Amino acid sequence: MTKPFKKILITGAAGRLGSELRRGLAPLAESLRLADREEIADLQPHEEAVIFDLADEAATMAATEGCDAIVHMGGAPMERPWAEVLDSNIRGSYHIYEGARKHGVKRVIYASSVHAIGYHRLDNHIDTESPVRPDSLYGVSKCFVEALGSMYWDKFGIESAMIRIFSSFPEPADRRMLWSWLSFDDCVRLVSAALTAPHLGFTISFGTSDNRVKPLDNSRAGHLGYIPQDSAEPYRAAVEARTEIADPKALSTQCLGGWFVDLGHPDDEAGE
Amino acid sequence: MTKPFKKILITGAAGRLGSELRRGLAPLAESLRLADREEIADLQPHEEAVIFDLADEAATMAATEGCDAIVHMGGAPMERPWAEVLDSNIRGSYHIYEGARKHGVKRVIYASSVHAIGYHRLDNHIDTESPVRPDSLYGVSKCFVEALGSMYWDKFGIESAMIRIFSSFPEPADRRMLWSWLSFDDCVRLVSAALTAPHLGFTISFGTSDNRVKPLDNSRAGHLGYIPQDSAEPYRAAVEARTEIADPKALSTQCLGGWFVDLGHPDDEAGE
Amino acid sequence: MTKPFKKILITGAAGRLGSELRRGLAPLAESLRLADREEIADLQPHEEAVIFDLADEAATMAATEGCDAIVHMGGAPMERPWAEVLDSNIRGSYHIYEGARKHGVKRVIYASSVHAIGYHRLDNHIDTESPVRPDSLYGVSKCFVEALGSMYWDKFGIESAMIRIFSSFPEPADRRMLWSWLSFDDCVRLVSAALTAPHLGFTISFGTSDNRVKPLDNSRAGHLGYIPQDSAEPYRAAVEARTEIADPKALSTQCLGGWFVDLGHPDDEAGE
Amino acid sequence: MTKPFKKILITGAAGRLGSELRRGLAPLAESLRLADREEIADLQPHEEAVIFDLADEAATMAATEGCDAIVHMGGAPMERPWAEVLDSNIRGSYHIYEGARKHGVKRVIYASSVHAIGYHRLDNHIDTESPVRPDSLYGVSKCFVEALGSMYWDKFGIESAMIRIFSSFPEPADRRMLWSWLSFDDCVRLVSAALTAPHLGFTISFGTSDNRVKPLDNSRAGHLGYIPQDSAEPYRAAVEARTEIADPKALSTQCLGGWFVDLGHPDDEAGE
Amino acid sequence: MTKPFKKILITGAAGRLGSELRRGLAPLAESLRLADREEIADLQPHEEAVIFDLADEAATMAATEGCDAIVHMGGAPMERPWAEVLDSNIRGSYHIYEGARKHGVKRVIYASSVHAIGYHRLDNHIDTESPVRPDSLYGVSKCFVEALGSMYWDKFGIESAMIRIFSSFPEPADRRMLWSWLSFDDCVRLVSAALTAPHLGFTISFGTSDNRVKPLDNSRAGHLGYIPQDSAEPYRAAVEARTEIADPKALSTQCLGGWFVDLGHPDDEAGE
Amino acid sequence: MTKPFKKILITGAAGRLGSELRRGLAPLAESLRLADREEIADLQPHEEAVIFDLADEAATMAATEGCDAIVHMGGAPMERPWAEVLDSNIRGSYHIYEGARKHGVKRVIYASSVHAIGYHRLDNHIDTESPVRPDSLYGVSKCFVEALGSMYWDKFGIESAMIRIFSSFPEPADRRMLWSWLSFDDCVRLVSAALTAPHLGFTISFGTSDNRVKPLDNSRAGHLGYIPQDSAEPYRAAVEARTEIADPKALSTQCLGGWFVDLGHPDDEAGE
Repeated sequence: MTKPFKKILITGAAGRLGSELRRGLAPLAESLRLADREEIADLQPHEEAVIFDLADEAATMAATEGCDAIVHMGGAPMERPWAEVLDSNIRGSYHIYEGARKHGVKRVIYASSVHAIGYHRLDNHIDTESPVRPDSLYGVSKCFVEALGSMYWDKFGIESAMIRIFSSFPEPADRRMLWSWLSFDDCVRLVSAALTAPHLGFTISFGTSDNRVKPLDNSRAGHLGYIPQDSAEPYRAAVEARTEIADPKALSTQCLGGWFVDLGHPDDEAGE
Repeated sequence: MTKPFKKILITGAAGRLGSELRRGLAPLAESLRLADREEIADLQPHEEAVIFDLADEAATMAATEGCDAIVHMGGAPMERPWAEVLDSNIRGSYHIYEGARKHGVKRVIYASSVHAIGYHRLDNHIDTESPVRPDSLYGVSKCFVEALGSMYWDKFGIESAMIRIFSSFPEPADRRMLWSWLSFDDCVRLVSAALTAPHLGFTISFGTSDNRVKPLDNSRAGHLGYIPQDSAEPYRAAVEARTEIADPKALSTQCLGGWFVDLGHPDDEAGE
Repeated sequence: MTKPFKKILITGAAGRLGSELRRGLAPLAESLRLADREEIADLQPHEEAVIFDLADEAATMAATEGCDAIVHMGGAPMERPWAEVLDSNIRGSYHIYEGARKHGVKRVIYASSVHAIGYHRLDNHIDTESPVRPDSLYGVSKCFVEALGSMYWDKFGIESAMIRIFSSFPEPADRRMLWSWLSFDDCVRLVSAALTAPHLGFTISFGTSDNRVKPLDNSRAGHLGYIPQDSAEPYRAAVEARTEIADPKALSTQCLGGWFVDLGHPDDEAGE
Repeated sequence: MTKPFKKILITGAAGRLGSELRRGLAPLAESLRLADREEIADLQPHEEAVIFDLADEAATMAATEGCDAIVHMGGAPMERPWAEVLDSNIRGSYHIYEGARKHGVKRVIYASSVHAIGYHRLDNHIDTESPVRPDSLYGVSKCFVEALGSMYWDKFGIESAMIRIFSSFPEPADRRMLWSWLSFDDCVRLVSAALTAPHLGFTISFGTSDNRVKPLDNSRAGHLGYIPQDSAEPYRAAVEARTEIADPKALSTQCLGGWFVDLGHPDDEAGE
Repeated sequence: MTKPFKKILITGAAGRLGSELRRGLAPLAESLRLADREEIADLQPHEEAVIFDLADEAATMAATEGCDAIVHMGGAPMERPWAEVLDSNIRGSYHIYEGARKHGVKRVIYASSVHAIGYHRLDNHIDTESPVRPDSLYGVSKCFVEALGSMYWDKFGIESAMIRIFSSFPEPADRRMLWSWLSFDDCVRLVSAALTAPHLGFTISFGTSDNRVKPLDNSRAGHLGYIPQDSAEPYRAAVEARTEIADPKALSTQCLGGWFVDLGHPDDEAGE
Repeated sequence: MTKPFKKILITGAAGRLGSELRRGLAPLAESLRLADREEIADLQPHEEAVIFDLADEAATMAATEGCDAIVHMGGAPMERPWAEVLDSNIRGSYHIYEGARKHGVKRVIYASSVHAIGYHRLDNHIDTESPVRPDSLYGVSKCFVEALGSMYWDKFGIESAMIRIFSSFPEPADRRMLWSWLSFDDCVRLVSAALTAPHLGFTISFGTSDNRVKPLDNSRAGHLGYIPQDSAEPYRAAVEARTEIADPKALSTQCLGGWFVDLGHPDDEAGE
C-alpha cells in the first residue's frame, strides 16, 4: 500500500505534542519535515529538520515546499503578550497557509485550542458550529486561524481540520483535566484521522479523550473517524487525592477555558 | 483524600431507592442523615436517622441543618390524591429548598420523574431542554419542584440536579422497562455523579440504564459524568416470556409515561 | 352569527386587566361571569358577579359551572409570601382547572407571566419552547399552572393558552417597559385570539405589544392569530426624559424579569 | 414465548439481503412467505414461496394476505431506466402498501436507501429528519415510498420503518464502504429491531454498521433499539491496500451517495 | 429592459390558477405557451396554446421545447384514484422534468401543495425543511415531484421552486381558509418571485397570504422575495357568519391538511 | 433629557458611512470626536477632529481617551494586500479595543461586514450564530475583530455590537444590492439602536434594509431594536433596466459575499 502522503511538514516539532506526532505520523508519509525555532533532537532517516521562526515569511513559506500536508502545531502555546501572539500565531499561521497555497499542499491540520471557546459553560454543551468565545488573546489568535483556514478551503480548495486541543499532557494534572484531558495517543489518533478522512473540507473538531464528564458535542466531526481510546478515569483517584475540590461556582470551574478566564491582559502583566 | 461532603441528608431513606443510596453514597460523605416518615432500620455508625413528615415545615427545615448536600427522594412516589401530592411533593419540597437556603446547603439532588414528561412520545426523542409534559398530578408536582430548583440556583446559588428517574426496580418488571429501566447501581452512579460533578448549576438528567431501546437524548447532561453500566437486555428473554406484547398503537405504549397516561384523576378514583 | 361562547368566567375581574377584559371580551360571549375577591363595580346586563377567594375550592368550582370558557386572571399579581402564593396561585388555579374538568369547560386562558422565564437574558432570544427559568416564587407558581394546564389538555382534553404577560399597564412606566409593554388593547387582542383560535391545544404565548426592541421569538404561537397593534415607541421620549439609563451590565437590565431578579425571598422581607 | 408474528412476507427474498433475512428473521415468526420474481432455493419447512412481479397488482396484493408483517426488500436494487423504476419501485411498493391495508398487515419494514439522501455531504452530518436529497431516479423512488409509508401510518395506522440501507455487502468492497458498510448481521439486527420495537409509528433509520467514520446522526431512530455490532475497521488494511485514495474534492467522495452522484440519466445511458 | 424569459410554459393553463397566471406572468416573458387537456379560451397575441395530456410523454416533452421556464400547475388538483394520480401527477411531472432537461429549460416552478405536509399540526409550526407528512395519494404525488425536482437541481442544474399552495380561491370559502388562504394576486406574486429570484437552486415555499393566523414558518424561503399583500381578515366576518365553528379537537381542525386528513382511500370510494 | 453619551469617537469619519454617522449620531452625544487618516471637512461646534493612522498604537489609544463610546468604521474598506489588512484592520482594531479598555469606554460599535460570512449561500438562510465563512482576507480580518470584541466583553466587560454591513451606498447600484442594500438612514438607525439598546453584551447584527429578498435571519439581534425603514424596491426598475440578469448558478450570485467570492489572493494581484 502506498502511504497517503509523500512529505508532511510538522511545525512545533520540538514541542510536547510535536514530539509525539513525529512518532505517530511516521506511518502516514514517506518522510517528515520537522520544523521548530529550536533544534530537533535525534533525527531519523525518514526525517529532516528545518529551523526558523514562523514570523519569518520567506523561511516559513520555503519550509512548506515539497510537502503535501502540514500539521501546524507551532506558535505560542499559551497566553502571551500581544506582540508575540501577533507574530507567532497570526502572522506565522498566515505564512503557513500562504506556503500551502503557493506550493500545492492539500491538507492542513491546525492545533487550535479550547481557548477559542473558553468562555462557554460546561452546561452549554456546545457543538463545533457554536459561535467562538475566546478567553484570551491566544484564543483570539486561534479564532483568526480558524477563519483563515475556512477561507483557504472555500477560495483555494485547501482542506483543513481545526483541532481544538483541550489539555494534552502525559496524564491529567488537575481536576479540570479529568474532563479536558487529551492523551498523547488520542492526539495522534485525532491528527491521523484528520489527515486520512475521506472528505475533510473545513472541519472543526474538539480534542479530548473519552473522559467520563462530557461537556461537549463533537458529533459534527464524526466524519473524521476519530474514536478516542483513552480516558482520564484511571487517574481520577490520584488526582482527587492530591488536589482540592474546585469551587463549583467559580467562573474558572464553570467555563471550558478553565483558569484562562481569570487571566487579565497579558501586556499588563508583562510590564506593569 | 477528604470526602466531598461532611453530611448528606437523604430523604425517603426508608424507601426502595433510599436504601440503595444509603449504601451507595456512603463513600461521599463523612456521615449520612437519613430521613423518612417511617422507621429506618439497621442504622450504621456513620448514619443518623430523623423521622418526620415533609409537610411539617419546621421539622423538615431542621433536618437540613448541618448538611452540605441533600438527596431528596422523599414524597409521594406515584399518583396520589391532590391533597397528598400538595403536601408531600409541593409543600414538602419547598420546605427542603427553604432548609437548604437557610442552612447553606450547597447541592440538592432531586428525584424528579419521567412523569414530568410522560406525554412525550418515544419517537419524539426529546432532550432535557424539551418542554415538560406531565402525565399526572404527581408529574405536575415534579415540574413544580424542577421550576423551584431552577429559581433557587439563579437567585440563591444553590446547585441542583433534577434526576428524572424512569423505572428504578431490582430488575425490569415488564416490557416497558426494557427501555425505561434504571438499575439500582446506575441510580447510585447517577446521583453520585450529580453530587460530584465539577459544575452543576441547574441540570436536568434523564435516569435510565444503558438499555438497547433509546428513546431519549441525555447528552445535554453529559457534564455530570454519568455513564450507565447496566442494561435491561439480560432480562429481555425472561420478560418477554412472561408478558404479552403491548399494543404498539396504545397511547401507553407510545408515551414515555407508560400507563400513567391512561390514569384518570386520582380524586375521582379515590372517592367516586 | 352566533357568539363563540355562551358564558365566559373572568377571574380577577376587578383587577387592572380584568376590567379591560370585561369590556373587550363582551363580543365573544352571550354573558360574562365576573369573579373576584372584591366587589365588582358597574355590573352590566350581560354580566353577573361572583365573589369568592380562589383558595376556597367549593366556591371556585361552583363559579365555573355553566361556563364554556375561563379567562383566569385572578390570584396574587406579584411576588408574595409563600403561603399566599400557595393559596392564591397554586391551590386556586388547581381549583379552576378542576372546575373546568367537572363542568365541561372547553378553553382556559391563563394569565401566566414573564416571571416564569425571568432569568433568561434578552440576548438569549428565547422562544415559547425554551425551558422555564422563574425569577420568584410568583414565577414558580406560574410554571406550576403551565404544567397543570399541559396535563389537563393531554389527559382531559381541556384546551389552554398560557399568556405570559410582560408589562400590561396604561402606558410604559419605565425604560424596561419600552420593550416589555403590553397595551391593554393588545392584551384584549391576545386573549380574544386565544379564545377564538381554530386550534389551541396547549399553547404558550408571550404577551407584549409590537415594541421596537424584540428580545423574544413568539412565532411558535403564530396559530393563535395574535397581531399586536400597539407599540411603546410613542411613549419613548417621555419615558426617557423622566428616567435614568439603566446600567446595561446589571442583571435586572439583562434579564427578561427585570427587577424581580433582584428580589430576595419574600418571607425574609415579610417578617425578618 | 409466543413469536411476535404469525407470518412475515419477505419480498426480494432471492436477493442478496433477502437470503440473509430469511435466515435471520426466522425466530420472529411462525412462518415466512418468501417472494421474488425468481425461484427461491432450498425452501425450509417454515417457509413458503410465491413468485410474481411487483408490478402485478393482483399478485402482489394476494401475496400479502395472511401476513402480519412485511419486510419489503424487493424492486430494482439500483439505478435503472425510468420505466423499470416506475414499475418495480413506485407501482410495486404501492401494491405492497395496498395489500397491507386490505389484509390488515401491522408493520412494514422497507429497504429504503442512502440514495434518497445521496447529495447530502458527509460533513453535513444529517439526521433522519433532514430533507431528502435523492441522487438518482432510484433514489427518487425511495423518497416516494417513504412518503407513501408516512401516509399509510397517519391515515391507516400501518406502522412502517424506512431503513435507509447504505452498503450491505459481505464485506467492505471499496474505501467508501469503510464508512457506509452495513454488515449482513447488522442488517438483520436492524430489521429485527424495527419489527419488534415497542412503538414504531413511522420511523426512518440509517442503516450502517458501527464504522469508525460516522457522517450521520441516527439518534432519532434510537427507539428502534438497533445497536450495530460490526465495523468495517477489520477490513481497512486490506481495502486500503488494493484501492486508490479517492480524490477528497470529488463530489462522489464528499456526498453520501458516492458514485451515484456522478451518474447521468439512466435512459440516456440505456439507449443513446 | 429585456424580459427575464423568452417563453414560459404554463401547464394547467385552463384551470383556476392557470388563468390567473396567464395574466400575471405576461410581463415576465416575451410569450407564453399555455398547456392544458382542455381548450384554452381567449388566446392573446403573446400566447400560444398546446393541448395534450401530461401522461403523454412525447407530447409533454415536445411542449417544453423552446421554453426557458416552466410553471407547472397541471395534473390532478385534488385526491383522485391511484391510476389517475399516477398518470397525471407522477408520470406527468416526470415528463415535464425530462422535457426541461432535454430542452435546456432553466427554471421550473411547481404547484406543490399543503397536502404534502397535511398531517402536521398547526401548533407544530413547521418550516420548509420539516419532513413531509402527506395526507392523501395526491399529497404523496406532490412529495414525489418535490424529490424529483431536488434531484434535477443537484444532478442536472435545473432550478426549481416547489410552491406548497394552501387554498387558492377567489376568496376564503370556509373557516380553515381564514388561515390557509392564498389570494390569486399573492399566488401570482409568489410564482413571479420564484421565477425572478436571484438564486433559486431547489427551494420549497409555503403559499399563503398574510393571514392573521400563522401556523407556519416560511422564513427559509425568504430569498425568493415573496411578500404577501393580501389577507383573509376582510372576509372574516362574512365567513364566520355563514359557517359553524369547527370542532377544535377534530383532527381536520388541528392539521394543516384540513378535511383531507379525514379522507379514506380514493379507490375505495371510487368503486367499492 | 440627558444625552446617552458624553463623547463618541467615530473612526473612519471622513469616509462614506462616517460622514452619515457624523450627522446621524449627533443627537446621542454631547460631542463627537472624528477620527480619520485624512482631513475632516466642515467641523461643527460639537465636533473635534483627530488625524492618525490606526496602525499607530499610541495615537489610536490616545484618541479613545475621554470617550464613552466608539463607533469604529475605520480601516481598509475592502479587500487589500495582507500587509494593509494586517495593519489597518487587525492591528488597528486591537489598538481601538486596548484604548477602550484603558480608558473605560463602555460600548464599541464595529463595522463588521457581510464578507465575514460571504461564502454562505442565500438559501442557507443563516442567522447571527451561524459559523463565520469569510470570503477574503478582508473578511478574515472582520472575523478577527468579532472574536476580539467577544473576548473584551467576556473578560473586560466592554459591550460590543458587530454590525455586519452588507452594501451601504446612496442607492442600490446593482442587482445584488436589491437584497443586500443598507440605506444610509438605516445604517444610522442600526448604529443608533446598538448604542442605545438596553443590554448589548456582545451582539452580532446583520445590516441590511427592509428589502424584499430576505436571505438572512436577523432575529437573534432583535434586542437591539433595529427596525429598518427603507427598501431597495423603489430602485428595482431602474437597476433592472440598466443591468444584466446575473447567472443564477454563478457562485457569486449564490453567495452572500457576491463578487468577493471570485476574488483571488490580493497579493497575487497587487504585484505578480
